[in-house]
Amino acid sequence: MKHLLLTVVTAASLAVPALAKDAAEIPSPGEIAAAAPAKDWVAIAPSDLLVMQLAPDTKGKARRVVIQLMPAPFSQEWIANIRKLAAAHWWDGTSVNRVQDNYVAQWGDPHGEEAAKAKPLPTGLTVVSEDAYTAPAITSAIRVIHARPGSKAMQLLQQRRGDAYAEFTGFIAGWPTAYDTERQWPLHCYGAVGVGRNMSPDTGSGAELYAVIGHAPRHLDRNIALVGRVISGIEHLSSLPRGTEALGFYKEEAERVPITSIRIATELPSAEQPKFEYLSTESDSFVRYADARANRRDPFFIRPAGGADICNVPVPVRAILAK
Amino acid sequence: MKHLLLTVVTAASLAVPALAKDAAEIPSPGEIAAAAPAKDWVAIAPSDLLVMQLAPDTKGKARRVVIQLMPAPFSQEWIANIRKLAAAHWWDGTSVNRVQDNYVAQWGDPHGEEAAKAKPLPTGLTVVSEDAYTAPAITSAIRVIHARPGSKAMQLLQQRRGDAYAEFTGFIAGWPTAYDTERQWPLHCYGAVGVGRNMSPDTGSGAELYAVIGHAPRHLDRNIALVGRVISGIEHLSSLPRGTEALGFYKEEAERVPITSIRIATELPSAEQPKFEYLSTESDSFVRYADARANRRDPFFIRPAGGADICNVPVPVRAILAK
Repeated sequence: MKHLLLTVVTAASLAVPALAKDAAEIPSPGEIAAAAPAKDWVAIAPSDLLVMQLAPDTKGKARRVVIQLMPAPFSQEWIANIRKLAAAHWWDGTSVNRVQDNYVAQWGDPHGEEAAKAKPLPTGLTVVSEDAYTAPAITSAIRVIHARPGSKAMQLLQQRRGDAYAEFTGFIAGWPTAYDTERQWPLHCYGAVGVGRNMSPDTGSGAELYAVIGHAPRHLDRNIALVGRVISGIEHLSSLPRGTEALGFYKEEAERVPITSIRIATELPSAEQPKFEYLSTESDSFVRYADARANRRDPFFIRPAGGADICNVPVPVRAILAK
Repeated sequence: MKHLLLTVVTAASLAVPALAKDAAEIPSPGEIAAAAPAKDWVAIAPSDLLVMQLAPDTKGKARRVVIQLMPAPFSQEWIANIRKLAAAHWWDGTSVNRVQDNYVAQWGDPHGEEAAKAKPLPTGLTVVSEDAYTAPAITSAIRVIHARPGSKAMQLLQQRRGDAYAEFTGFIAGWPTAYDTERQWPLHCYGAVGVGRNMSPDTGSGAELYAVIGHAPRHLDRNIALVGRVISGIEHLSSLPRGTEALGFYKEEAERVPITSIRIATELPSAEQPKFEYLSTESDSFVRYADARANRRDPFFIRPAGGADICNVPVPVRAILAK
């Protein structure tokens, strides 16, 4: 047997898009994205990138995880806290303390629960209200600009079959979101980064963060703050050994993965600043991409699904290569 | 910050169910399953378990993956092939050759593509038709027994919001499935095990298998054969280093993870046979569990979702402890 899902996988791994061998072949989603014109790609500001450097792996290989922070109107108070924590170099010397299979990898102060040993937080962090798990619904005028509700892509994802968790879903400025007539909110898709918290009404400061490394735990939407998504290096979290304690916490201190530093990219030397761009979710290329994700017609497939879960339509993100 | 999602995670990890501290507390899904009476649990026949022993990890720790094979009417011709391959000890000495992040881990003959080096398959394997990716829809009389279509659990998962990929979804004899008026089929949820294939009309023999280790790739439903699910040890696949070649294939032979053996459990010495049971999807306990997955009311949550993606309602499976 050969490479299972040849075309499927090409679609998912934009880093190495395969070109259609025959012009008559129907392109895969990955090929559509790779062929999108430069104008359809949007550069991500380095000031919106959080760069986490983990200690090198057992073979001495560097491990860098790049997180894109969310734009307004989502979670901006937690994100302001995160910027303060990064500026204070607060995470340096902390660790990844928990990896639970098909769920999350979580990092922060391993002694956060022990008052006597906990690392003091910087001053000036905001205590955020639970109301901020969602944002006011955007007006229809703004929605036209941001989400093109009448677009084919939106229709495909909001078809009669719908979404199990929300009345409407769609992409806003590059992010998968859900909304109803009053509120809108970001989604717990694979790679989403959120803010650990205690029981309500605690909402977390942003010092304790997690990344989704399994099937989208959408039941957490609107119950916990999302602040970003991993756009590079998620394998350094998702392939870590699973913790054997309850909730996937590591049992031994030696199991924890040391965090060397977490910085906003603009604080790094220019040559080390990561440069990424995403496929504009308002572009025609994205409409075609989303359509192809929902209706695979490329050669491997014999039966298009006729729809797609919004978390199964990952927004294409790629490194901007030096010219 | 404390343990993010304390109760959520308890729900997901049935191995260590937390008991509600206060009788007045609303139980989590995991607590509901853990409290289910013995009569609601169904033992899995050892003859339906495929036991994969990987080479020990770098610390010398054993790695065992247990796969439950699907019941009729799903994929039985491929499963017959798999039983023949296991009986022939065909997989012994093969390897895990591909691990692609948020997608699949795949194993079999690393030289399967090179005619001169490929390991010969046992004789007598069936070439299966693409029609067998789905099965005839069960009659309403049978469905009443198997899936309780009028049950609360079914309604919860088939509510107005629906499923992005299929007209109807529900649980049949312990398995997440979808169906329409003519056909029914199994789903690519986390942990699902499928049969690698080449381009249509090839359907794969069963010698090349993969397990889903990321967000459910439901676009593969009805396009490829599913034969089972990992019920224990998936972390030995999901936490493997990701391959760096296209499609997540390992570049170097040394990166491949050797498979010591794959056996149907009944071929193992009695003391080594794994014993598992699943929560009957026809039980009242499961109805309550599915309801709680779709509407989290336990203390961590402030807002129940009002629905759940069927792949986010994993059927509880647990080891049967010796008495």
